[in-house]
Amino acid sequence: MSIITLTTDFGIGSPYVAAMKGVILTLDPAAVLVDITHAIRPQDVREAALVLAEVAPRFPPGTIHVAVVDPGVGTDRALVYAEFGAQRYLAPDNGLLSRVAWRGPRGRVIRLAERQFWLAEVSATFHGRDILAPVAARLGLGLDPQRLGPPMERLVMLDWPEPRVLPGEIQGEVDQVDSFGNLVTNIAAGLLPQAVEYAQTRVVCAGHETVGIACAYGDRPPGSLVALVGSSGRLEVAIRGGSAVRELGVGVGAEVTVLWNRPTTS
Amino acid sequence: MSIITLTTDFGIGSPYVAAMKGVILTLDPAAVLVDITHAIRPQDVREAALVLAEVAPRFPPGTIHVAVVDPGVGTDRALVYAEFGAQRYLAPDNGLLSRVAWRGPRGRVIRLAERQFWLAEVSATFHGRDILAPVAARLGLGLDPQRLGPPMERLVMLDWPEPRVLPGEIQGEVDQVDSFGNLVTNIAAGLLPQAVEYAQTRVVCAGHETVGIACAYGDRPPGSLVALVGSSGRLEVAIRGGSAVRELGVGVGAEVTVLWNRPTTS
Amino acid sequence: MSIITLTTDFGIGSPYVAAMKGVILTLDPAAVLVDITHAIRPQDVREAALVLAEVAPRFPPGTIHVAVVDPGVGTDRALVYAEFGAQRYLAPDNGLLSRVAWRGPRGRVIRLAERQFWLAEVSATFHGRDILAPVAARLGLGLDPQRLGPPMERLVMLDWPEPRVLPGEIQGEVDQVDSFGNLVTNIAAGLLPQAVEYAQTRVVCAGHETVGIACAYGDRPPGSLVALVGSSGRLEVAIRGGSAVRELGVGVGAEVTVLWNRPTTS
Repeated sequence: MSIITLTTDFGIGSPYVAAMKGVILTLDPAAVLVDITHAIRPQDVREAALVLAEVAPRFPPGTIHVAVVDPGVGTDRALVYAEFGAQRYLAPDNGLLSRVAWRGPRGRVIRLAERQFWLAEVSATFHGRDILAPVAARLGLGLDPQRLGPPMERLVMLDWPEPRVLPGEIQGEVDQVDSFGNLVTNIAAGLLPQAVEYAQTRVVCAGHETVGIACAYGDRPPGSLVALVGSSGRLEVAIRGGSAVRELGVGVGAEVTVLWNRPTTS
Repeated sequence: MSIITLTTDFGIGSPYVAAMKGVILTLDPAAVLVDITHAIRPQDVREAALVLAEVAPRFPPGTIHVAVVDPGVGTDRALVYAEFGAQRYLAPDNGLLSRVAWRGPRGRVIRLAERQFWLAEVSATFHGRDILAPVAARLGLGLDPQRLGPPMERLVMLDWPEPRVLPGEIQGEVDQVDSFGNLVTNIAAGLLPQAVEYAQTRVVCAGHETVGIACAYGDRPPGSLVALVGSSGRLEVAIRGGSAVRELGVGVGAEVTVLWNRPTTS
Repeated sequence: MSIITLTTDFGIGSPYVAAMKGVILTLDPAAVLVDITHAIRPQDVREAALVLAEVAPRFPPGTIHVAVVDPGVGTDRALVYAEFGAQRYLAPDNGLLSRVAWRGPRGRVIRLAERQFWLAEVSATFHGRDILAPVAARLGLGLDPQRLGPPMERLVMLDWPEPRVLPGEIQGEVDQVDSFGNLVTNIAAGLLPQAVEYAQTRVVCAGHETVGIACAYGDRPPGSLVALVGSSGRLEVAIRGGSAVRELGVGVGAEVTVLWNRPTTS
């Protein structure tokens, strides 16, 4: 029994997703299908790359993650199979896998070229259904990935900016907005001062400043600006019971600065 | 094979839901996962409590319902396992289970305390993924609930207002709005006059009045105000082919009065 | 193991969908449930009919497709079981199955009449849960469809306008808008001039005109109007990287004309 996840920008409620599921189940009726999300902003490869890197590692080893955010469908961009960590991926080679590939050990990458594993009829606009779905089903049934096509040396990579770490200061940025409107930054918990110093730390975003770093949303009064280490292990800026993205009027790319009263970083 | 449902306020398309599913499937790849809804208004514990009480009893006995609407995550609110009817629940103890617990026989309640059944690393902000998901998977695999922690005497209860029944009159209120914009009241069908008297009954809401109580939406012309007993067994006020919540401009908590020409209630 | 799909206008995140799933799983815990979509516009039978006809044939033979867009619920409209192609359907007889039935070979149709296969208690407003869900589960478990009720001669049919084919010209119309805002027409690829002539073909919609017919979205610069054969095998009008429905200000029913420089059609 194989587990296959789907991540797309088809929009919530899009029947295109079900078309892919139908193709998979026709080949492997026992496949377990899980939606990661279909609410990626249309053609936002970057957002999908971040979501995939965050969620895919939570799945059992060997899970096949199919991701379709594919503005270049029908052009000569490649479709690829890749392995990173214990997970397997099928996606267009447009940066979508560049976050799971980021800073990890080098994984195996294969370009999908063998048409015998695709649907007999391949449309110009829906390779998710016509190529990736049947390939996912066949991999789940045990097909050796080597048979899919030739190995590839490198994937298309997006730029993943790193925070700048200075004495008593970290300069980072927002790289995701979650469905609560919380601003998730690129500042990993490990870069922050020790938790005992959280009360003396300030986080500045869009001209607003938090009082310390909290341990939980509930530690601050409703409506106040909160900074805390979120579920992804990165610093988040949130409004308790509200939407930071709306109330601060900023989004992905906004600067976030962490300041604390120490001459040097620990 | 265990069935596990998920009810959250994470928002439609939130990848947080998939993270929980990944954790569950990692422990139990054969778990059957069903979404009840992820469109609960952010932090609206009351709405989630009503949805859970309405839908959960439709599932097979022994189903495990995981509910995460958790504004107090990371504070000292308890997480609980509970049994009501033939269903099992995992949720924060913030009122979320107070509707399934309402007027039913007393069920077993256990406070989640044994960390050995949680993920090794527990974040401050996502106990759904780090605590409830692994506990759900382990219960599905047969773990004895007694091992999860100590029994609890009582759950946090929300207030569930009862309609006032007078001779020839019932004073109730709207307690849910469904996705069609229908106003679902707290007036159970059993409180209404007999169906033979529906034609002589009026339902008043927001200054508007229905002609009788209908048996089906189709019994009234498009655009008209309709009152009928809905699928939850409670009186609903609807606009045929439209949205009552929008056209009447009222919502949860609005007064709904049923009037009929009888000196006494039956 | 049976596969059961669900198509409704209940709205994304509606717990009514989960109520149907609970009923099905109670009768057949091994049923595989797949959502086609729950984002059909409320009571838009026509949209649901098109979606069903497009997606259902992608599923394995014998799949049971339950469709609930049912403004006449509780009136005397029939509920039906039908077979078209290798697929099986359960739906109200209000036109919902008239696209899968359109131009295909005549299929078997049965009116649901035998209450022994329904829930014991049938509400006036939710036959999807109370009738279709339990019947789907029982069919999946092997119930002979003949036992459901008497055969029916004909289904309620909606009108499916055909494009008008003239020398060097096709006059069609938009019959669907997808989640990207692309306008899907009723012009099948087979009616178009040969692909070698795509560059000399113009597509006119809402006073705008495309330069040729493209083979892929990526063949045109961002922001430009594109016509191409979409994944359903029909001509689509799209804005590359944008929303044609928004930018052209037209929708279902809008005229689309294909023109090419030839005295006669091929």
